Amino acid sequence: MASEHTAKAFDTDLQELTRLVAEMGGIAERMIVDSVDALIRRDVALGQRVVTTDAELDTLQKKIEERAVLTIARRQPMAIDLREIVGAMRVATDLERIGDLAKNMGKRVAALETDFHPLKLFRGLEHMTDLVQQQVKSVLDAYAAHDLPAAMAVWKGDEEVDAICTSLFRELLTYMMEDPRNISFCIHLMFCAKNIERIGDHATNIAETVFYMIEGQAITDKRPKGDMTTFATTIPNT
Amino acid sequence: MASEHTAKAFDTDLQELTRLVAEMGGIAERMIVDSVDALIRRDVALGQRVVTTDAELDTLQKKIEERAVLTIARRQPMAIDLREIVGAMRVATDLERIGDLAKNMGKRVAALETDFHPLKLFRGLEHMTDLVQQQVKSVLDAYAAHDLPAAMAVWKGDEEVDAICTSLFRELLTYMMEDPRNISFCIHLMFCAKNIERIGDHATNIAETVFYMIEGQAITDKRPKGDMTTFATTIPNT
Repeated sequence: MASEHTAKAFDTDLQELTRLVAEMGGIAERMIVDSVDALIRRDVALGQRVVTTDAELDTLQKKIEERAVLTIARRQPMAIDLREIVGAMRVATDLERIGDLAKNMGKRVAALETDFHPLKLFRGLEHMTDLVQQQVKSVLDAYAAHDLPAAMAVWKGDEEVDAICTSLFRELLTYMMEDPRNISFCIHLMFCAKNIERIGDHATNIAETVFYMIEGQAITDKRPKGDMTTFATTIPNT
Repeated sequence: MASEHTAKAFDTDLQELTRLVAEMGGIAERMIVDSVDALIRRDVALGQRVVTTDAELDTLQKKIEERAVLTIARRQPMAIDLREIVGAMRVATDLERIGDLAKNMGKRVAALETDFHPLKLFRGLEHMTDLVQQQVKSVLDAYAAHDLPAAMAVWKGDEEVDAICTSLFRELLTYMMEDPRNISFCIHLMFCAKNIERIGDHATNIAETVFYMIEGQAITDKRPKGDMTTFATTIPNT
């Protein structure tokens, strides 16, 4: 009887944790979209709103960690139940970092007040963002539904994002070489592109957490990796 | 009798966790120094070694998380004991991120093979690194010794790092405007400088964890913040 009570109490705790993670996910997704929208539309107020919102994610992450730890201490879950709790903590950590990266983009909006505003560059950024936001959405759905194939699809699917990032870096470099007045603007966009790419990395981290929760072990396969941006800026020298 | 046994078993678990965190700290400190040394001395092999070493940090972090969770489930610690375990997990997360940032710098060494190598820029980077490495060291010592004043000194002390970063960004911009051939090199250094600054941010995160462990609550004061690098690159336009 007591153990049945414990099992029910555990389920309630876990549901609450999953609900909090979903809440974080919703906020993080919104922040990604808003920060890039703010960049494209030069909407300083929206950028500032993203910066302010980040505190909500930080608070939720701490709350999830606290509740997770209390649940473990009180219910002493084993095996798969324990992994569910650890999984919630890990996903919360990734979402908190996604928030930091969006916040950093939000901060840059004010610095991009310039007449130089090539639409082509922004389209690249927008396209990257669409893909990454879709990855974040898909992997959070996969997490909620315990859908391993869907999580693995995200895990394998960030090559396109990396390719766009690399080509965007090349283009930005060209603009910088053409006219020194473009430099500061392009640097900001480079940091933003890198942030979006890193948000994609966090989506794959979450996919790995889903794998761990379901399979009970860390993923061992090597992930396909198309990111060459660390090297893209050497091109003019070669 | 049983509770005395539990208390002893808990202490042994906690000691093992603290030992693992110290091991991570040693590796992370080494990675910071090596990655910047590799940049300055253009030592591609050393840079590659930093990249490889990062996997050790990832493994240790997962191990710490696993053991922490098992300790909570088995020993059901309360209050301060629970905070010690949560603290170990949080510090491990920050050290893992520090490793990622150093790894990113290690990757860039190969891309910096150029004749343009102004010593002044590297001195700035070196100076930043010295300060940040000292912060990481101090805060890990404060964590091990439960020394709240020492942790708070780190928490308050990253203004100098941020100031150097801002002035380094300005200088890099000047070099880029002067000669387009310097651009790709300078961009790499900007990303590296930003990484070092972020490592400093993780040191202050760890200081906050020490505060939480000892005081039992999150720090509420506003930290002094001197970072203007998000805006430093607007200077040429104003």
